[in-house]
Amino acid sequence: MELVPNNSLKCATPEEGRQLAIQLALQTAFAIQPDDQAEHIIRDAYANNPDGIIAASHVVATEFATVAAANNYWR
Amino acid sequence: MELVPNNSLKCATPEEGRQLAIQLALQTAFAIQPDDQAEHIIRDAYANNPDGIIAASHVVATEFATVAAANNYWR
Amino acid sequence: MELVPNNSLKCATPEEGRQLAIQLALQTAFAIQPDDQAEHIIRDAYANNPDGIIAASHVVATEFATVAAANNYWR
Amino acid sequence: MELVPNNSLKCATPEEGRQLAIQLALQTAFAIQPDDQAEHIIRDAYANNPDGIIAASHVVATEFATVAAANNYWR
Amino acid sequence: MELVPNNSLKCATPEEGRQLAIQLALQTAFAIQPDDQAEHIIRDAYANNPDGIIAASHVVATEFATVAAANNYWR
Amino acid sequence: MELVPNNSLKCATPEEGRQLAIQLALQTAFAIQPDDQAEHIIRDAYANNPDGIIAASHVVATEFATVAAANNYWR
Repeated sequence: MELVPNNSLKCATPEEGRQLAIQLALQTAFAIQPDDQAEHIIRDAYANNPDGIIAASHVVATEFATVAAANNYWR
Repeated sequence: MELVPNNSLKCATPEEGRQLAIQLALQTAFAIQPDDQAEHIIRDAYANNPDGIIAASHVVATEFATVAAANNYWR
Repeated sequence: MELVPNNSLKCATPEEGRQLAIQLALQTAFAIQPDDQAEHIIRDAYANNPDGIIAASHVVATEFATVAAANNYWR
Repeated sequence: MELVPNNSLKCATPEEGRQLAIQLALQTAFAIQPDDQAEHIIRDAYANNPDGIIAASHVVATEFATVAAANNYWR
Repeated sequence: MELVPNNSLKCATPEEGRQLAIQLALQTAFAIQPDDQAEHIIRDAYANNPDGIIAASHVVATEFATVAAANNYWR
Repeated sequence: MELVPNNSLKCATPEEGRQLAIQLALQTAFAIQPDDQAEHIIRDAYANNPDGIIAASHVVATEFATVAAANNYWR
């Protein structure tokens, strides 16, 4: 399994950086729970669980901080 | 969908930076739960759930740290 | 609504920086839940909920990290 | 009320920095919930609630990151 | 027990850095709860607990921030 | 009580840095809840509570970020 798509933190734009942050968060979840149920469990949780959505958004924010620093904030 | 409004972390002022941080947090939530119910679920959660408000504020604080660094803290 | 008081992260002292961090956290909460009930909901939550106090303190700590960096730690 | 003891992040040693981090976390809690019950509520919560202890430790860790950076890590 | 595999934060690639971040998170868990049940408890928790998966992903994101900085973001 | 063992963030290796991060997290917990029950409460919590293990691992990750920066990431 690939934990970091294309094995790189380089992104051309903030939008791409944000997509990478979401991918990093998802790939960790699948690495932790690598069975066929994982995606189902996670999607169900979000469907009825706003706390889960907020908690996942926090993970994405943390990943994005790293991706943005890696790209020198696209300055 | 646009995850980063205007595809840029540049903001003229801290106030604009703060608005961007809130937008970044919201766009992640909609990316995770992209159905018509998402906004309804999230608003309901906040209406009766102070813990949800605090948790969401934490996400915004984390996003703002990145936006502020990207703008060299408007020094 | 003003998300960043005076639209600036500049603070003369750590004490002022700390006050700003608390204000930033509160303004986000009011931006998320902008009705007349918001302040009531949040105050009730704290009155009986030590976990809420700790969670809110974490948000303030995260905001303060940004404010302190913005002011070069008042060195 | 004083949010930052002595209005300074300067500490002679890591041990003093750690004490400041704990003080910063506590002062925020009292600023949020400024009544006579606050200390009682918080102490009760810790007495029977290991999750509260861990959550509070996280806040202290976050404060200490800022204090340590402010003191250039006592290098 | 080894808390840091190979006692080094150096990684050749972001993918290796991500694997290290996951290992760091796991080794802490085993250090905290060092009995034969630890792995069983943790795996059970993930099997039925999407919140646990998200919380663990947050830990990995935090570890990865350090690993990425240590490797100068593989720039 | 000593909050920072040897009153220093200097560590020869990442492994020692990791041990310090765990010690910092534990010493905070004992500072918050300084009675004879504290260690018992915390150990019980971990025995049956994977969420507690993950939350504590998050604290260690946050402490380690500071220790690693203090040691310039052992580069």
